[in-house]
Amino acid sequence: MVMNSKIEKLIKQFAKLPRVGNRAAQRIVLALLQDKTGRIEKLVEALVDTNENIHACPICGVLTDRAMEKCEYCRDMRRANNMLCVVRDLSDVWTLEKSGVFGGRYHIIGGLLSGVAGITPEDLNLANLSARIADEKITEIIFALPNTIEGKTTQQYIMSIIDKENIKFSELASGVPLGGELDYIDDGTLSLAFGGRRTI
Amino acid sequence: MVMNSKIEKLIKQFAKLPRVGNRAAQRIVLALLQDKTGRIEKLVEALVDTNENIHACPICGVLTDRAMEKCEYCRDMRRANNMLCVVRDLSDVWTLEKSGVFGGRYHIIGGLLSGVAGITPEDLNLANLSARIADEKITEIIFALPNTIEGKTTQQYIMSIIDKENIKFSELASGVPLGGELDYIDDGTLSLAFGGRRTI
Repeated sequence: MVMNSKIEKLIKQFAKLPRVGNRAAQRIVLALLQDKTGRIEKLVEALVDTNENIHACPICGVLTDRAMEKCEYCRDMRRANNMLCVVRDLSDVWTLEKSGVFGGRYHIIGGLLSGVAGITPEDLNLANLSARIADEKITEIIFALPNTIEGKTTQQYIMSIIDKENIKFSELASGVPLGGELDYIDDGTLSLAFGGRRTI
Repeated sequence: MVMNSKIEKLIKQFAKLPRVGNRAAQRIVLALLQDKTGRIEKLVEALVDTNENIHACPICGVLTDRAMEKCEYCRDMRRANNMLCVVRDLSDVWTLEKSGVFGGRYHIIGGLLSGVAGITPEDLNLANLSARIADEKITEIIFALPNTIEGKTTQQYIMSIIDKENIKFSELASGVPLGGELDYIDDGTLSLAFGGRRTI
């Protein structure tokens, strides 16, 4: 294809993004280039502004852009201190917050154990988990991991490394479809799954 | 949703792009933020670099980032000078170039006449078209506009304002599905449609 090199480079950058193919990337770039309202400038500003200010919360792993070191979930005094919800990544936190079914603390592990993908416990954000449970006097750990083999394996592993004394473990009730990812569940189902969580 | 304001702003910017919904925008932003290979920097660089260097070719309307005023299609001496292909926008040029079925010049009109959307002839890039046809000694004008009511209306309008002496008009052969947009046609069909173009 005879095309401008800079435009082509920009299309390639967009085509690398998740859920954006080459044709969608072309449409996006064209819409941006033909726009007269400064969308490129706004997008660049938002990207730079976020990128320069982002850091992972040292407690829970949530990416935050606040000036404070701790994220808004760890600093929020109104949240239940004794309940900890273990999730895979930040989008799961967003999904749960949107549904409003959980008012405790989060812990993002950043992935799932997988022999195939070569993800080992060292790759997950687990180093400070035991200390956290003791420090914050956690009494219940709720696993909100994907209902897949990897999710369950990871859950079993985490349970095996935690001192079980005075800790209640629970997982989301069935209601989460098998093989399903948290991202795609409607708030109602998620609410039922939270309400019906069972001790394991 | 309790969320970081900067991240939220960034998600909103992505959600405004064509073919990107709110959920896809969340996934995109998360992938960018979690990336360790400098994808945000590369994306920003490509956006800024393109945005600062882009301009519309004064002859045909193609957006170009080259240092020269004229675009690469207008400057290319190997292209047939007497054939002019009228298209709606730059993505149609990309589609045609990718298929390799046309080796003449382009003219981007930038839209289609539409009573509903309030698009009038003044909104289209038609001001220099007659002069161009005379200057460049165009002998054939090929309309490659969408095969829709608006496309055909626009085509009729353009034919009505051009001095028809010594000019052959043609449109893409049927082969372009009714209601179809050029973007979604495979190269084979497009090639047939070009080969079978008929005088009108």
